[in-house]
Amino acid sequence: MKLEDLGEFGLIDRIRRRLATGHDAGVVIGPGDDAAALVPPEAGSVLLLTCDAIIEDVHFRRRWMSPREVGWKVMVRNLSDIAAMGGQPAHAVITCGLPARTEVEFVDALVDGLGEAARKYGACIVGGDIVQSPVLFVSVALTGHAEAHSILRRSGCRPGDALVVTGELGASAAGLAALEAGRGDDFPDAARAQRLPAPRLAAGQALARAHLATAAIDLSDGLAGDAAHLAEESGVGVSVSLASVPVAQSCREVCQALGLDALQLAVHGGEDHELLYTVPADRVQEAVRILHDEAGLAATRIGSIVEKERGLLAVKPDGTTMPLGEGWDHFRVRKEE
Amino acid sequence: MKLEDLGEFGLIDRIRRRLATGHDAGVVIGPGDDAAALVPPEAGSVLLLTCDAIIEDVHFRRRWMSPREVGWKVMVRNLSDIAAMGGQPAHAVITCGLPARTEVEFVDALVDGLGEAARKYGACIVGGDIVQSPVLFVSVALTGHAEAHSILRRSGCRPGDALVVTGELGASAAGLAALEAGRGDDFPDAARAQRLPAPRLAAGQALARAHLATAAIDLSDGLAGDAAHLAEESGVGVSVSLASVPVAQSCREVCQALGLDALQLAVHGGEDHELLYTVPADRVQEAVRILHDEAGLAATRIGSIVEKERGLLAVKPDGTTMPLGEGWDHFRVRKEE
Repeated sequence: MKLEDLGEFGLIDRIRRRLATGHDAGVVIGPGDDAAALVPPEAGSVLLLTCDAIIEDVHFRRRWMSPREVGWKVMVRNLSDIAAMGGQPAHAVITCGLPARTEVEFVDALVDGLGEAARKYGACIVGGDIVQSPVLFVSVALTGHAEAHSILRRSGCRPGDALVVTGELGASAAGLAALEAGRGDDFPDAARAQRLPAPRLAAGQALARAHLATAAIDLSDGLAGDAAHLAEESGVGVSVSLASVPVAQSCREVCQALGLDALQLAVHGGEDHELLYTVPADRVQEAVRILHDEAGLAATRIGSIVEKERGLLAVKPDGTTMPLGEGWDHFRVRKEE
Repeated sequence: MKLEDLGEFGLIDRIRRRLATGHDAGVVIGPGDDAAALVPPEAGSVLLLTCDAIIEDVHFRRRWMSPREVGWKVMVRNLSDIAAMGGQPAHAVITCGLPARTEVEFVDALVDGLGEAARKYGACIVGGDIVQSPVLFVSVALTGHAEAHSILRRSGCRPGDALVVTGELGASAAGLAALEAGRGDDFPDAARAQRLPAPRLAAGQALARAHLATAAIDLSDGLAGDAAHLAEESGVGVSVSLASVPVAQSCREVCQALGLDALQLAVHGGEDHELLYTVPADRVQEAVRILHDEAGLAATRIGSIVEKERGLLAVKPDGTTMPLGEGWDHFRVRKEE
């Protein structure tokens, strides 16, 4: 059955039934009214609010991403923003732009993916809007709660702070390369990183509770791009030791097969959704231990915050430096020299 | 200059500067971090959350709608949802899907329209996301605050309650017809209703304060469609007296010129963003007076809530009834009988 047969309101009823999962203590009025009404965070907490969207043939292709994965991924993009603030996800509203020829079963699976990611990480979908659109897109707005005095920000780090990253990098970008090359089945770990990412909520919350991080951001644009955002908001420079960047094994495998540069993908590829954060240099061990104990996650020091005037630097294994932001082609030329 | 020349982050900087309007007391962290951080509503209040989007060539055409009007209108669609809950708008996040060939000046004007509507009605834009998209769309998520004990809902009206509508109907649908026919300049009032609607925030807040309304909804889908939503959520039927429906003069003028049925547009046309609400039958005068005194707005009783079994009825001037939901063609045939 196609959407044009079911109609907008038939579809909304169907989605509401599909998402209904019993009573949520924080929901006064859920889907079905002009707006959702929600219990606000407790005194001393702040309300977090973020939004992010996913668009067909810009962020994914139907030939290598299922509708359930599309729903999951766009919810995780938002959950990852809440993780980067050290918050706990709360409530989401969804705008779906759907071509009239879309199959209802496609929407069912999309909604399932959105709902699964929300439930797994403690968020609740409380409303939304279905609009006809020539291109398929899903836009999510997500709230979260965080303690006002321990919230993680992009601003706040100072020269001398250590730059630390959770997990490993490059798997999502490698997965994209493999999927676009029609090789997703050969590289299931990388493909999974691209299609079913995980937000680092426990890590963000552990960092916030410990009052350790002087700044934090999630890696959605890639290490180089997001380090630049963090530096911009903090008014500092950054120096990344390329030899220290933890490159995912699944990224190495894809790159070997496809003739790509794994370090390049780890530094410039996006959508890893790991956390990049800074701590005072004498507290790196403590920060690594807390993430291990409370979030089961490895963390690696990959560089330092430097004075703003020094800019954004990558330190090569031979000790020489190059601009961190330099892109793919330039980087490759240097490497081949 | 086109977006592809400026780049995503250049554009985001430009938008942030354009929206910067000084300190907002409710904003702890504004645009520029992974999420906004906001002061939650006071104890005893609920947080409202809604979203709505506008898409080129689905909801508007560039040949008859300026980018400033596009921004204004999508913000008002969301503000109107908060009005229908009796709330006060608070904070918005915006997702803009923009083709790479978009002119930067187009985005400037779009952002101006979003910001103007937000500021005029007491909301603050605190973040957002720019994504490349083959089709231009703007998706807004808006929060609001409302007193928990006086919130307006779609559910709650009972048979015997009076059905009341603010303002006049049909102007926006008539404006759409005039603009699509290339006659917008001939009908400036109708065109303005379509392009620059106003949310009925003062009316919704006055109704909430007075504890008068047993149910409420904003008219975005049209009187017939939204009365059906209200009836569905309240588990009742509704009877609308067609002779009582306040048809906007600008709607009559367009319909006379274009050979359309003005009552038809007032009943089935959407986007008037007036409030449709119910009050106990003995409090209609009080509800009309309060809206006049506190919101400067006329209100008209147009029918009654009836038992669910009676369904959704339109009472014709001769006293006979027909289904309220019957569409354009059928309605016309009946009228010509």
